[in-house]
Amino acid sequence: MDILGGYEVVVIGAGHAGIEAACAAAKLGAKTALFTLTLDGIGNLPCNPSIGGTAKGHLVREIDALGGVMGIAADATFLQSRMLNMGKGPAVHSLRVQTDRRKYHAYMKQLLEKTQNLEVKQAEITAVDIRDDAVCGVCTHLGGYYRADAVIVATGTYLGGRIFVGEASYASGPDGQHAACALTESLRAAGVPLRRFKTGTPARVHRRSIDFSKLTRQPGDESIQPFSFLTKSEMKNKVDCYIAFTNEETHRVIHANLHRSPLYGGKIEGVGPRYCPSIEDKVVRFAEKPRHQIFVEPCGLDTEEMYLQGMSSSLPEAVQNEMYRTIEGFEHLEIMRPAYAIEYDCADPTALAPTLEFKEIRGLYGAGQFNGTSGYEEAAAQGLLAGLNAARAVQGRPGIVLKRQESYIGTLVDDLVTKGVLDPYRMMTSRSEYRLYLRQDNADERLTPLGREIGLVDDARWAEFNHRRAVRREEAARLTKVVVRPADANPVLAEKGEPLLTSGASAAELLRRPALRYTDIARMLPENPDVTPFIAYCLETEIKYEGYIKRQQSQIGAVKRQEETPIPEDFDYAPLTGLRLEAREKLAKIRPRSVGQAARIPGVGPADVACLAVELAKRRRSEGKE
Amino acid sequence: MDILGGYEVVVIGAGHAGIEAACAAAKLGAKTALFTLTLDGIGNLPCNPSIGGTAKGHLVREIDALGGVMGIAADATFLQSRMLNMGKGPAVHSLRVQTDRRKYHAYMKQLLEKTQNLEVKQAEITAVDIRDDAVCGVCTHLGGYYRADAVIVATGTYLGGRIFVGEASYASGPDGQHAACALTESLRAAGVPLRRFKTGTPARVHRRSIDFSKLTRQPGDESIQPFSFLTKSEMKNKVDCYIAFTNEETHRVIHANLHRSPLYGGKIEGVGPRYCPSIEDKVVRFAEKPRHQIFVEPCGLDTEEMYLQGMSSSLPEAVQNEMYRTIEGFEHLEIMRPAYAIEYDCADPTALAPTLEFKEIRGLYGAGQFNGTSGYEEAAAQGLLAGLNAARAVQGRPGIVLKRQESYIGTLVDDLVTKGVLDPYRMMTSRSEYRLYLRQDNADERLTPLGREIGLVDDARWAEFNHRRAVRREEAARLTKVVVRPADANPVLAEKGEPLLTSGASAAELLRRPALRYTDIARMLPENPDVTPFIAYCLETEIKYEGYIKRQQSQIGAVKRQEETPIPEDFDYAPLTGLRLEAREKLAKIRPRSVGQAARIPGVGPADVACLAVELAKRRRSEGKE
Repeated sequence: MDILGGYEVVVIGAGHAGIEAACAAAKLGAKTALFTLTLDGIGNLPCNPSIGGTAKGHLVREIDALGGVMGIAADATFLQSRMLNMGKGPAVHSLRVQTDRRKYHAYMKQLLEKTQNLEVKQAEITAVDIRDDAVCGVCTHLGGYYRADAVIVATGTYLGGRIFVGEASYASGPDGQHAACALTESLRAAGVPLRRFKTGTPARVHRRSIDFSKLTRQPGDESIQPFSFLTKSEMKNKVDCYIAFTNEETHRVIHANLHRSPLYGGKIEGVGPRYCPSIEDKVVRFAEKPRHQIFVEPCGLDTEEMYLQGMSSSLPEAVQNEMYRTIEGFEHLEIMRPAYAIEYDCADPTALAPTLEFKEIRGLYGAGQFNGTSGYEEAAAQGLLAGLNAARAVQGRPGIVLKRQESYIGTLVDDLVTKGVLDPYRMMTSRSEYRLYLRQDNADERLTPLGREIGLVDDARWAEFNHRRAVRREEAARLTKVVVRPADANPVLAEKGEPLLTSGASAAELLRRPALRYTDIARMLPENPDVTPFIAYCLETEIKYEGYIKRQQSQIGAVKRQEETPIPEDFDYAPLTGLRLEAREKLAKIRPRSVGQAARIPGVGPADVACLAVELAKRRRSEGKE
Repeated sequence: MDILGGYEVVVIGAGHAGIEAACAAAKLGAKTALFTLTLDGIGNLPCNPSIGGTAKGHLVREIDALGGVMGIAADATFLQSRMLNMGKGPAVHSLRVQTDRRKYHAYMKQLLEKTQNLEVKQAEITAVDIRDDAVCGVCTHLGGYYRADAVIVATGTYLGGRIFVGEASYASGPDGQHAACALTESLRAAGVPLRRFKTGTPARVHRRSIDFSKLTRQPGDESIQPFSFLTKSEMKNKVDCYIAFTNEETHRVIHANLHRSPLYGGKIEGVGPRYCPSIEDKVVRFAEKPRHQIFVEPCGLDTEEMYLQGMSSSLPEAVQNEMYRTIEGFEHLEIMRPAYAIEYDCADPTALAPTLEFKEIRGLYGAGQFNGTSGYEEAAAQGLLAGLNAARAVQGRPGIVLKRQESYIGTLVDDLVTKGVLDPYRMMTSRSEYRLYLRQDNADERLTPLGREIGLVDDARWAEFNHRRAVRREEAARLTKVVVRPADANPVLAEKGEPLLTSGASAAELLRRPALRYTDIARMLPENPDVTPFIAYCLETEIKYEGYIKRQQSQIGAVKRQEETPIPEDFDYAPLTGLRLEAREKLAKIRPRSVGQAARIPGVGPADVACLAVELAKRRRSEGKE
């Protein structure tokens, strides 16, 4: 073993979690190395070539607000952009873009290469050297050793990766890359509780083999909102997506061949994502549905590969051919990469603190699929948090815990470490009790000040944030104050079929009407400031939903007291005989940081929480803190 | 095993050989499939990011002249272009370009995807199904089976690939891709004679870690000649390269660590390329040299990776760090991908006919490194030939054999199948006895008519060729005819320090003077046609070296008779007791197609050739052919 050098923070894996982790750690000034099995696989999009979507789009905006890189890269390499759920309330408006898969990779690779304090290295990490429950270094497959103060495991589907297609299976990462087979054993030996999850990918098919005239075209938005609060260039869609449908014949082919699926034949032990099932799962679990939707998405401008979102499968290739070709428009489908399932090793996230450090191993962090989640955005969010916390720990600063009431990232991490996961965890807006407030449009207001405090938000972003906030507040104040005369308002109102004004009304009051947009109000006023479409969107949301939002904020205030009642990290639950045995065990295992977190642990009931709260209050009094 | 379909031609491997093979076969109308371990590895440049170079540039022009794709892709993705050896005669002028590694991949991938009659598929081929000494199909790692009439093995370094770095070794293709481990056994079982070769790659390092002020800058040419005869867009260099040197300290580090080299420790059994040795080989074999040159080349515009051409190594990573950092300008070098050696399975090319079909296995072809060569260009040249011959065979047409006297491709293949190889074969101009004629500037005149006849040259290329040839001939005729008056010539001659004219001379006569260029002559004439710099270059070459070229062409004529005396494919050497035993055995093994080829077989002497010629003449007479 040759000692090759040393780093403060080592990140294992250069997927979406590893990228954010490495950038965050390096930005905070930690000497950082990012190890990847191949430099050509950095920021790969092995599943669908898209970023964002319901709740996931919120995560991307939050990552961006904190100074992360996913949003910037997605904006720089997007092919098509859509704001989803515009028919519903603004809490669930979610941005989703199709990206150019290879350009996204190249963008991220160079971004990492150009990051100060960061070295990007091609190597398989075969072991984390852990002594006295603390990280000391990492070993490479070439017999090299690097000292390390902190190590972030962000191994995605590569850790013990095994691909299944029908009766065939083999050790592999996605897209023809090696699996990382040695590291699991080292983590197991260090006491990391491991499990096996799986995920799936549909076939990639040739554009020329699809009859698009039989599919439904799905164009992008006319006016595009970028992901990043920093993006200012004008964005235009470059491609269309399409929608196809399975039918009864598709389902018949699947049923007739279920015995050849490794999922149903018992070959796959890993647990798959409940909210992103394979097509055979969908057909079996939702037997009453006569058809399932398929999104047909281009993988890039310089390739003819198309992605069949919604049709992941682990059936044999021959069955895949038969199955896909039953679909209208796919009669002559030419598969370029067959669909597959991939099984991988990951950790039980209840072993993690909310900083994403392992509670029992100092300096070891987990992020992304390794922590039991699914999705690029979930991975990136955790990477950012793990990266900044690893750097802070190395620098002797306290860990940062993001709160449920201030972000989806906080919600995600709290869910993971408090409740654990039984299958790959996917973010959904329904997972947040604060979703009216945790919107994508205000992610910067919620998180950029914190990012600035931590050191992730640079001067340029901070200046941009302050400018945008000032414009927004000023304009909100003006709209509240300015009175629109009936003569100015009524022509527009008449045009919209809205009740007319008989006396003056404030612009804000008018904007509260569901049918009116900011641009309509602007037409009623003699002069308007130069406001971007994005700020106009934010103002609409703020003003229209002010009532709801105020109510939610008062709820947040109410829970804040309980939520923020801290529990010392070394709190001993054993003497609390008032707790039920299960609660005592779970509390000792999860070691919640607050009473709020304690209350969410499965197996901890309201009586247990009351008992705990009383005990904590007693102690605080005896310590003279209250 | 599921039967998934059938193809006329199946190509295994999408490197430089596989790409040309697939394109050629598909262009000739054969239903073709190209299988690759990963679609993301198509047209990879795992070694240096450059195309061309001495003799190799000739191959690229010949591939282009025949309708191949390498030259077009190199032009479309080049970063820097240089015409090498301009201080020497035009026979060795050779084009060499730095390409953008990822853009080259993307260009080739889409080019293949858009090729008619061609399907590109991600799959490992684990076996070629051979029955009764003829190809029937191929098996995939997913348990699929495709029927095939012809199969071209173009597996590069992936077949049984194993990477070595110091004491570490593991099964792998280049750049973190899987090796193809199963196919070897199937080929061996079919009787393909196999061997093990190796090659090496230097480290890829970070641009910011190099002190370029200590290196010698190597800019590209001011006026760029494209590779492809079709390229018309103006080309401008985008990057500089640099030159660095090893020193005594570098050599000391290498010597001190030779025992840790798998090459010297006996771990690598494969034979490496003689003309592209590792740095440890150079230091040992050329002990008297105080320094070796290193070319520092960028890998692309969207990456900070730089390639250290000339410094391939299989020393341990720690030794690599120490060794590279002894070099001026590399004091703080940051390795991103360490150097490595890779060992792979390949075939003895004497088992091949000059069509690149295995003599004993109908429908099985070899191309590229699998045939024992080294280099992208050598691979592509063979791929083109194997592809067109596989398609022709399937269509019942006779095989095409390229002749030594008409091309480097013919020379390469003749060398391979006649003499075999002891180490990876690299093309060099010295390998051709016709090198004054086999220039890169006349590749189109030598080969495009044949490409047209075969069906590889489309109408656009054919029209372009005829136009260029007409312009060239017309202008050559004019230069011979037009008389330059002393008054017009002498100002230019005086400026160049050339002897002045006292009476008129033909423009061609003046152009024969070594110091004068076409542009100088043009200045002496009142009017000139619009001739491209490339055609001007061709005219200079033709006219300046007319004497040498004529002499060589008469030599070609003289050998033509012997060279072209055919030997029937099933000729029985056993009864020719006049042949020495060794000659009889070698002739029976190689089965030369002509007396010329027979004469080049190692172990066949002039007396043997005479005996054979007499016998052949006797037979022809008895068959009434002469």
